Amino acid sequence: MAKKLSTDAYKGVRDFFPADMAIENKIFDIWRSVSEKYGYEEYNASVLEPADLYRAKSGEEIVNEQTYTFTDRGDREVTLRPEMTPTVARMVAARKRELIFPLRWFSIPNLFRYEQPQRGRVREHWQLNVDIFGVESLAAEIEVINMAYDITRAYGLKDTDFEIRLNSRKLMNYILRDMFGLDAEISRKVSKLVDKKDKLPADVFNSEIEKLLSVKAAEFLALLNSKNLTDLSAKISGKSGVNNASEIQTIIDGLANLGIKNVRFDPTLMRGFDYYTGIVFEVFDLNPANRRSVFGGGRYDDLLALFGNEKVPAVGFGAGDVIARDLMETYGTLPPALASADIAICVVEEKNTLFALEVASELRDEGNRVSVDLSGKKLGDQISKANKRGVAKVICIGDEEVKTGQYRVKDMKTGAEEEIG
Amino acid sequence: MAKKLSTDAYKGVRDFFPADMAIENKIFDIWRSVSEKYGYEEYNASVLEPADLYRAKSGEEIVNEQTYTFTDRGDREVTLRPEMTPTVARMVAARKRELIFPLRWFSIPNLFRYEQPQRGRVREHWQLNVDIFGVESLAAEIEVINMAYDITRAYGLKDTDFEIRLNSRKLMNYILRDMFGLDAEISRKVSKLVDKKDKLPADVFNSEIEKLLSVKAAEFLALLNSKNLTDLSAKISGKSGVNNASEIQTIIDGLANLGIKNVRFDPTLMRGFDYYTGIVFEVFDLNPANRRSVFGGGRYDDLLALFGNEKVPAVGFGAGDVIARDLMETYGTLPPALASADIAICVVEEKNTLFALEVASELRDEGNRVSVDLSGKKLGDQISKANKRGVAKVICIGDEEVKTGQYRVKDMKTGAEEEIG
Repeated sequence: MAKKLSTDAYKGVRDFFPADMAIENKIFDIWRSVSEKYGYEEYNASVLEPADLYRAKSGEEIVNEQTYTFTDRGDREVTLRPEMTPTVARMVAARKRELIFPLRWFSIPNLFRYEQPQRGRVREHWQLNVDIFGVESLAAEIEVINMAYDITRAYGLKDTDFEIRLNSRKLMNYILRDMFGLDAEISRKVSKLVDKKDKLPADVFNSEIEKLLSVKAAEFLALLNSKNLTDLSAKISGKSGVNNASEIQTIIDGLANLGIKNVRFDPTLMRGFDYYTGIVFEVFDLNPANRRSVFGGGRYDDLLALFGNEKVPAVGFGAGDVIARDLMETYGTLPPALASADIAICVVEEKNTLFALEVASELRDEGNRVSVDLSGKKLGDQISKANKRGVAKVICIGDEEVKTGQYRVKDMKTGAEEEIG
Repeated sequence: MAKKLSTDAYKGVRDFFPADMAIENKIFDIWRSVSEKYGYEEYNASVLEPADLYRAKSGEEIVNEQTYTFTDRGDREVTLRPEMTPTVARMVAARKRELIFPLRWFSIPNLFRYEQPQRGRVREHWQLNVDIFGVESLAAEIEVINMAYDITRAYGLKDTDFEIRLNSRKLMNYILRDMFGLDAEISRKVSKLVDKKDKLPADVFNSEIEKLLSVKAAEFLALLNSKNLTDLSAKISGKSGVNNASEIQTIIDGLANLGIKNVRFDPTLMRGFDYYTGIVFEVFDLNPANRRSVFGGGRYDDLLALFGNEKVPAVGFGAGDVIARDLMETYGTLPPALASADIAICVVEEKNTLFALEVASELRDEGNRVSVDLSGKKLGDQISKANKRGVAKVICIGDEEVKTGQYRVKDMKTGAEEEIG
């Protein structure tokens, strides 16, 4: 006899028992219905991708330490996709000549990160990916942020529960490179540091900035601490700096015009990935117990050039399932569990089963979800189990029903019975 | 400048561009809606599983040569799941005490096989998995085969296009071990050979059987060539042999009672996996151009015992996406492509965009799928693109519309216009 097998899942991944899967499906339904309302088309690809796809532009740390990468028997290096953007860029580049732009695409892939499991950090998660390709104007950002807003509202949050934070990579690059004259490497280090600002004590952050910027540190910190966009704009010089700032204002105004007013400029917002080229944004949960970034995205106009194509303007975002569920639990907006059947058929004796299956078949043809109790247990147990599962209607099939072909449907809430047949 | 990245997907897997994804979603909808009509609850798990899970009972060749298995940095052996049954058995075993039996569960996982890609054989595919746990009676088989029938009909096949083939592992084991006195190894070899009967020339098959069974070969071949169940029953001896045969008849009669009559006994039907213990079945496509097994399943009562649990009776089947699509293409039953929006809004000049976004937002609130053309192209191009995409209604937003707040919805089929605002 073989040794007993473990019932544990692989470390850091989740089993979705039906109650959990119902919540996942609720989240996927929100994602899908908002995306479809905006005319986005669903696509997908395999979780397996050539490892080279991630070497180019994802940020080195992600490729080297945080991916599942292995060599297959054909000596190919394969990666379990850690994010969807390189995949969608690959697909769009592959058919660039045939596709009709602008493209509006979405997907709900599972993604893999090799990291130590902890609360809210799992090795496999599902993510909505929304992208619009081929639009240079800021209307793309307004549309995509509108979708992010609709999704957050569909999670059950009110406008006062969250805010949308905006920044511009172009503006930050202008400040770091043109205004402060930093080289690419130092700029990158400053950006990474600013990205972590909220996680560091203020004095640590300030002293790290001083190390990188020395005499210019105070001026830079003053910029970061601007009260708002107007305040910041007054401190920056040069036409392209002002233009970059005014792009942010255009988006704030455009969203306000659509009734979305919980939007603010945040010069410390960076977003992790290296490939952003313009506006970046995130949805930020204002819950006092747990203020945090919920999800976000931005413009990445250069990514398709990696495949030898001309640049294609692109704006997109990704939203994960773990935080979506956590938000719905925090705000108490998870829908009540739905019973898995509308009607349960109880079988008095085993010999009545065939007729029970027949009745079930007819009721299904009428559009009902029907389960037949095949447990062979006592009638009382069957009825009480149907009740426990929350089934709204019960039918009992015994000899009498088989003989007459007639049966009664009992409403489990009101007790009312209806004769059928 | 980095070298140009390839746009190819990993070898043997598929990219799902929107037109392909729409077909996948159609298939998933069929699977989900039939499963839910029978009161089945959806579950899922990660594609990553401990490799040990597949060592026990899947058939050795599957584990050793056909899986993606690698070692993670924590020195754990991980497999990309090649089938779902071991996973669902693991999950049910893990919560056996809390779950209310019978369980009706389904899932739509992606599965991985490491094999040479060829027509209809891909390295990653999606599969419906349906299982009922905790029912000893043959009503479980009748229900599950009824679902397999409904799914095949939902693919668009008529009763005359396919048949459901039935056999019993118990019956075959009885014949091989009790009637013919073969040991486990020879029995297994005979089973594997019978499984391949249709793929071998008759004389090759017969001579291989002779090698394994020598003087008993003729008697065995006569059994395999039985005209029907009655014919076979007459040739077998012993009460348990007759009982096993009568189980098959019970299922044929039960299905006939539900109006399903394209069912027949097939003594050569084996099904690949080692874990089946009773009735096995498959849906068989009768298309003269391409007769083939479409999908199937059976009873596997012993699998949960591997996790140290008592046995739990289980019946299930799996149905794949590749053959589902192929069938719908063969029988011409794929639904026409649906436009990705109900209404397209064309924007005469860029300055009209904000109002266009506002109109879109209102129309979405009324439940419409609305896309706004943000291409900045000429109006004629925008309208012709909407037409090409099959969008039913078009709205044009120019200065006049912005000024008056009124706009017209044009029906692209009838040309009729409706004034709104």
